[in-house]
Amino acid sequence: VRAFVLDDNPPRLVADWPDPEPNPGWARVRPLIAGICNTDLELARGYMGFKGVLGHEFVGEALDGAFAGKRVVGGINFGCGDCPSCLSGMARHCPTRTVLGILGADGVFAESFAIPERNLLEVPATVGDEEAVFTEPLAAACQILDQIGDERGRACVLGAGKLGTLVAQVLSVAGFETDLVGRHLQGLGFVDASGVRRVGERAEGSGYDLVVEATGSEEGLALALSLVRPRGHLVLKTTVAARHAVDLAPVVINEIHIIGSRCGRFEPALALLAERRVDVRPLISARFALANIEEAFGAAAGRGVRKVLVRHD
Amino acid sequence: VRAFVLDDNPPRLVADWPDPEPNPGWARVRPLIAGICNTDLELARGYMGFKGVLGHEFVGEALDGAFAGKRVVGGINFGCGDCPSCLSGMARHCPTRTVLGILGADGVFAESFAIPERNLLEVPATVGDEEAVFTEPLAAACQILDQIGDERGRACVLGAGKLGTLVAQVLSVAGFETDLVGRHLQGLGFVDASGVRRVGERAEGSGYDLVVEATGSEEGLALALSLVRPRGHLVLKTTVAARHAVDLAPVVINEIHIIGSRCGRFEPALALLAERRVDVRPLISARFALANIEEAFGAAAGRGVRKVLVRHD
Repeated sequence: VRAFVLDDNPPRLVADWPDPEPNPGWARVRPLIAGICNTDLELARGYMGFKGVLGHEFVGEALDGAFAGKRVVGGINFGCGDCPSCLSGMARHCPTRTVLGILGADGVFAESFAIPERNLLEVPATVGDEEAVFTEPLAAACQILDQIGDERGRACVLGAGKLGTLVAQVLSVAGFETDLVGRHLQGLGFVDASGVRRVGERAEGSGYDLVVEATGSEEGLALALSLVRPRGHLVLKTTVAARHAVDLAPVVINEIHIIGSRCGRFEPALALLAERRVDVRPLISARFALANIEEAFGAAAGRGVRKVLVRHD
Repeated sequence: VRAFVLDDNPPRLVADWPDPEPNPGWARVRPLIAGICNTDLELARGYMGFKGVLGHEFVGEALDGAFAGKRVVGGINFGCGDCPSCLSGMARHCPTRTVLGILGADGVFAESFAIPERNLLEVPATVGDEEAVFTEPLAAACQILDQIGDERGRACVLGAGKLGTLVAQVLSVAGFETDLVGRHLQGLGFVDASGVRRVGERAEGSGYDLVVEATGSEEGLALALSLVRPRGHLVLKTTVAARHAVDLAPVVINEIHIIGSRCGRFEPALALLAERRVDVRPLISARFALANIEEAFGAAAGRGVRKVLVRHD
């Protein structure tokens, strides 16, 4: 199959990648549309030392198994199924997991790929392909709600990129009075419909009950700490900010909760899309054919570019 | 009054400190016993720029007001009483608070001191003076239970000093299978009664549901991160460890909850002492008279020394 492969060289489209040979319980999927994530750009720069086919955001057609012929999306963490994490429903934290297009498992920038059947969900007919392909990042945004408990209040999302924009909408829909802080707020008028308030580069005041760091910049964590109220929640969504050294003494003095947040469950994300409570299509900056995926990667790294999709037709 | 005063010089006992003049709603208290805390040693080294009478751990006799003649302990954070934090019962996080012997309020290493009456609690007759003086640090240990929710499991407490020893007992009594990790475990046999397991300098294995950093050392946070399971809780009890730069990327990937933890409510701590569920007196290393408090401070800084008490009789 044709596939976009990372090895010791920059990633490139190859014509003769081996067909996926699914294990028992796995299905093959033909992607309809795939999305390029910042993680893909980081992997291409050597993050995690991944080798193989890139890509983990997809909507596709299952080629075999229980979902054969159906439109599907799928969870990207492949747990062993037997460890305490997997048995308690936390396959996302299985210590021996592989991760689609990220860790030990070929990804979705290919004419077909393999995935455990238990990871698949059928896409409701009311959700279009260009919405369904956002299920994975939207699930990562929804994950915050699974982590912080039931209290609501004032939220501040730092970073108006793809993830920050989804997070802000999810928090607002869930009942937070939500400020979205970023440098590039033009073209984001669509978030107003969900009640999100767009704020310039500096957040006004502080004392937020919840601050979400989604800038992917080194300064993000220190800024987030200055904005959260005593005993408030600070959610870390990017490893870039987390790697930067910050004095955490205020965390002790003000009894802040810092919560690392990664992937989420797909069900609430698909429900938000089906109910049209979150708007994702305005985040699409460009569409490329699989044949032009190298250009698509270049475009995705561009300043101010949001979601770049790869169509497999 | 005689008082142990910090100014631009090392702290020293002075004979002629002004008598406390309580504001309306405040009471004067004559300390019976005061405890020396590591924070006192840090303040004496310049931490927080405090000037005035040191000391915040006490059991004393109220000299006036509703508690006159009674044995009392008292919360050390003096909130304004009117701000959103105070009105929601979080005077400990009042932005304009003063703190007994730590921030803008003279402390307890004196023949008498002043404290808001609403901060006082009467000590049950079954709790002796040398137990009651541990109420404040024990409340700080109990605070962890107020912060982490109802889940139980395996806990690891890093640091077998005064605070770590109290934390380990509190967690074990609350239902955690608790390991106490430290360099100096000799003389700590009394914690076995509460079910705490004493472990040598290196914790065995990892995957703890809860890790409490109470070492006060720069390496504490990194070690704690290596011991906590994915989605587990890491409680930071010392600002020293928090100031040291650590890569927090694993916090995101493993979705760790980091919780800063400082002071706690006195009620559950007094209850644990009254029910004799936590043993504190074996932590006493030495007792000094107020007249010898300078020596007491020297002793408290000694290697392997635990609680040093100052008797005011």
